[in-house]
Amino acid sequence: MSILVIGSVALDSVETPFGKRKEILGGSATFFSIAASFFSPVDIVAVVGEDFPKRYVTLFKNNGIGTDGLSVSKGKTFRWKGRYDYDLNTAHTISTHLNVFKDFDPHVPKHLCQPEFLFLANIDPDLQYNVLRQVKRPKLVACDSMNYWISTKRRSLEKLLDKIDILLLNDAEARQFSGEPNLVKASQAIISFGPKAVIIKKGEHGVFYFSKNAHFVAPAYLLETICDPTGAGDTFAGGMVGYIACAGIINEATIRKSIIYGSILASFAVEDFSINRLLKISGKDIRDRFDHFRRITKF
Amino acid sequence: MSILVIGSVALDSVETPFGKRKEILGGSATFFSIAASFFSPVDIVAVVGEDFPKRYVTLFKNNGIGTDGLSVSKGKTFRWKGRYDYDLNTAHTISTHLNVFKDFDPHVPKHLCQPEFLFLANIDPDLQYNVLRQVKRPKLVACDSMNYWISTKRRSLEKLLDKIDILLLNDAEARQFSGEPNLVKASQAIISFGPKAVIIKKGEHGVFYFSKNAHFVAPAYLLETICDPTGAGDTFAGGMVGYIACAGIINEATIRKSIIYGSILASFAVEDFSINRLLKISGKDIRDRFDHFRRITKF
Repeated sequence: MSILVIGSVALDSVETPFGKRKEILGGSATFFSIAASFFSPVDIVAVVGEDFPKRYVTLFKNNGIGTDGLSVSKGKTFRWKGRYDYDLNTAHTISTHLNVFKDFDPHVPKHLCQPEFLFLANIDPDLQYNVLRQVKRPKLVACDSMNYWISTKRRSLEKLLDKIDILLLNDAEARQFSGEPNLVKASQAIISFGPKAVIIKKGEHGVFYFSKNAHFVAPAYLLETICDPTGAGDTFAGGMVGYIACAGIINEATIRKSIIYGSILASFAVEDFSINRLLKISGKDIRDRFDHFRRITKF
Repeated sequence: MSILVIGSVALDSVETPFGKRKEILGGSATFFSIAASFFSPVDIVAVVGEDFPKRYVTLFKNNGIGTDGLSVSKGKTFRWKGRYDYDLNTAHTISTHLNVFKDFDPHVPKHLCQPEFLFLANIDPDLQYNVLRQVKRPKLVACDSMNYWISTKRRSLEKLLDKIDILLLNDAEARQFSGEPNLVKASQAIISFGPKAVIIKKGEHGVFYFSKNAHFVAPAYLLETICDPTGAGDTFAGGMVGYIACAGIINEATIRKSIIYGSILASFAVEDFSINRLLKISGKDIRDRFDHFRRITKF
């Protein structure tokens, strides 16, 4: 089943208590697509600058990720520089240079306009909406957002919510959007705007899934080593949508498993910088961790 | 199977965003024993002042809680006054009047010196150690502590750890004791001091259980209404130890289930002030929530 992701491809400079890396491959579409590629083919719609290293394009292709929608614009690639302290839940942005990403106006190539699964990574909700208008309604549309859009483009976000299936937010964003400190009530409030379900990502504390009739709670996979949490949320989304696409059926059981696969992909991602750890794991590593997850949560 | 708890019985004045109560029944031994009483008989060793309302003693007795070890000393009962803001994870202490609890030197009545299960609620680790010397080694000794004893009586706490089976701490305390931000490593460090297992309570984020050879991760039960988190940790311990005592067998499966029962008892406790909610629930309510917990975590 085909997956399309619209998001960013970036060069990140990251400092954590466990090391420092300069201009490493990052961006929401990168983490999402690498994670999803374990389960299903993926196509990226994103923009990079003329300085974007060709070896990364090759890397995408070698992992079954289509780059026909990865356009190269005059100028420099989006760069983000950030730092994490021992509280790895909070990223401190040192600088953001949007560069070519500033004028990103996603255009879905014609042959990619019928994706079965669509992930709208965190960009301006008006652009997310425009993408939806370019494609034939997919089987499943999942969408991410952030605090900035909640405060500056709330109306656009509300309009979008009515058109998607699953909204992914972190706990602070869910509280901000709903004005409701309790996450059960926050989720109900979000669902009243139209999406079939909401997934609340709580980082090291796990994930909540809410739909009108069901909910699911999962702890995060326990790790001894967390090196760099950048991209964990998008990796989660990639593992999740990738697994659903691979399963081919969208039902409660599939969604629950997909959330565990998402958590597992994210658990690998944070063990090293960029997508380094994801590039080293096999399908067997993922299945082993899935089985272990089941063992440590069973009662 | 008999359970003995050593801890505090107090009168709490509590203010939360959802209401305000004055001099309501509180204390670690109170929450623990009421929760455990759903599964097993319990005896309390604690001290109160002459002003302690007799109706509360009757309340304990009516719930199968032995009060032979509840001594009445000249003076006033321990009083705690606190406040919670919307972040219900953090208690803000307004005042603590230890009163008769200041000179608490727990003496276990002779006929209670052979408990099968022992819970040492959070008091001075030297006193916890003294209690251990008064009783025949129980089948299981669980023990709570807090940041204050970790910083002021670390050596005493270390000595105690070698004599107990399960240490219960919250996440901040586990990090403080071990000097290790990662909770997996923190747990390993704690276990190296002697206890068979450590349970890390993360409030609304659930519980970790670590032993040398196994670990278990559980989210917290999801609630729409959290009124007052006072006593949640001791209620958790009461549900947990109570269930193990009721099951009669101490193995991995029992411990996992006991952690879920502990979480469920705590989920009821926080829905109202003091032990009010716990007094209104039935065994069926507990089993129903257990079944629901299983449904919302299954994958």
